[in-house]
Amino acid sequence: MREVFQQELAEVQSGLVAISKDVLSAITRATTAFSSSDVSLADQVISDDLKIDESTLHVDDLGVEILLMQSPVARDLRFIVATMRMTAALERMGDLAAHVAQLARMRYPEQSAPTDLLEEFANVGKLDVAQAERVVRLFETEDAALIDEIIAADDAVDNSHRHVLEYLTRHENAGDVSVSQIVDATLANRYFERFSDHAVSIARQMRYMQEGAPEVPAEAE
Amino acid sequence: MREVFQQELAEVQSGLVAISKDVLSAITRATTAFSSSDVSLADQVISDDLKIDESTLHVDDLGVEILLMQSPVARDLRFIVATMRMTAALERMGDLAAHVAQLARMRYPEQSAPTDLLEEFANVGKLDVAQAERVVRLFETEDAALIDEIIAADDAVDNSHRHVLEYLTRHENAGDVSVSQIVDATLANRYFERFSDHAVSIARQMRYMQEGAPEVPAEAE
Repeated sequence: MREVFQQELAEVQSGLVAISKDVLSAITRATTAFSSSDVSLADQVISDDLKIDESTLHVDDLGVEILLMQSPVARDLRFIVATMRMTAALERMGDLAAHVAQLARMRYPEQSAPTDLLEEFANVGKLDVAQAERVVRLFETEDAALIDEIIAADDAVDNSHRHVLEYLTRHENAGDVSVSQIVDATLANRYFERFSDHAVSIARQMRYMQEGAPEVPAEAE
Repeated sequence: MREVFQQELAEVQSGLVAISKDVLSAITRATTAFSSSDVSLADQVISDDLKIDESTLHVDDLGVEILLMQSPVARDLRFIVATMRMTAALERMGDLAAHVAQLARMRYPEQSAPTDLLEEFANVGKLDVAQAERVVRLFETEDAALIDEIIAADDAVDNSHRHVLEYLTRHENAGDVSVSQIVDATLANRYFERFSDHAVSIARQMRYMQEGAPEVPAEAE
């Protein structure tokens, strides 16, 4: 019984690792698709999102099964509770990557963002990719140092978010920037920022699991 | 023991009712503040959001306590699992109401949205308020008919979201609409739409609790 239990917990953990790798792949490709207006890459990200959704449901089912059959306590209970929320965060990260990809696709052959902002978005995309990489390693190693790294790294994403908003609102006359580009850039800005928020939310859940401290809800701005 | 258990479950339920009432109040006031550029009302919504965050943490703690002490099964277990996710949705609904209020506040004394869109936003605000009312009643009564109503009512919110996007991108030249207004309208549009998505996510969790069917992740667009 104890052995089965350990095996089930390990299955949840490897499920989280696998989903986070899919999320990492999604945000990596979405960022490239967005910067390079690569429609077929964007399509891939959008269609692959279904797999992430299904995998999170599967891990959730495992979690409920463990609660039902094993009545876990202490750290094991917190792990399952945290998992239920972390799968929701991973699912949203996948959605946000797909949303970024959709922006690239809808606007094709136009650029999704004003030229001035392409570099900023490529940069924040890299920051999000780095967050996703940390989340993968966090699930693999449960290294508490990564929790602090993820929380600290969110500041750079927030700064980028602010820069883009400032850039956009500085242009009181749209001029050479089309309204579609302003709308798309506003949404992309939001998606990139929320992606990192969910990484922070996962980091806080892992801290809750490790320390039992109450998690603080992730807040965007 | 059994009596304590029932009392604890009732406490979780009344916690959900109380939080959903706070969320209803938040979106009602946020919508008014946004339409009328009422800064002091906006400030209230923003500062009251902390209460929603704290209440969700409290209900979550109760849920973990119940898992630990009572090892619930069947519908009771699903209720606690669903609660963990529904509190997250309620917390985000409160955040989104606060975000709408922030838009009203940041842009004051300017209008937060182009005049042409104020009516559309007042309308979608009302749809969100109606969704929040249904969520309150759903927690109070657990009436399955409300689940279908909430899911069906989301279509009107999605339509409004599309209208606003179409309106914005039709104006290929900003003209009399400032870039700030385009940015704000794009964000408000997203916030109003996401609010209703979270109501749908709560409805699906309540269905999962009642029927044990796997919940489908809520997807925006």
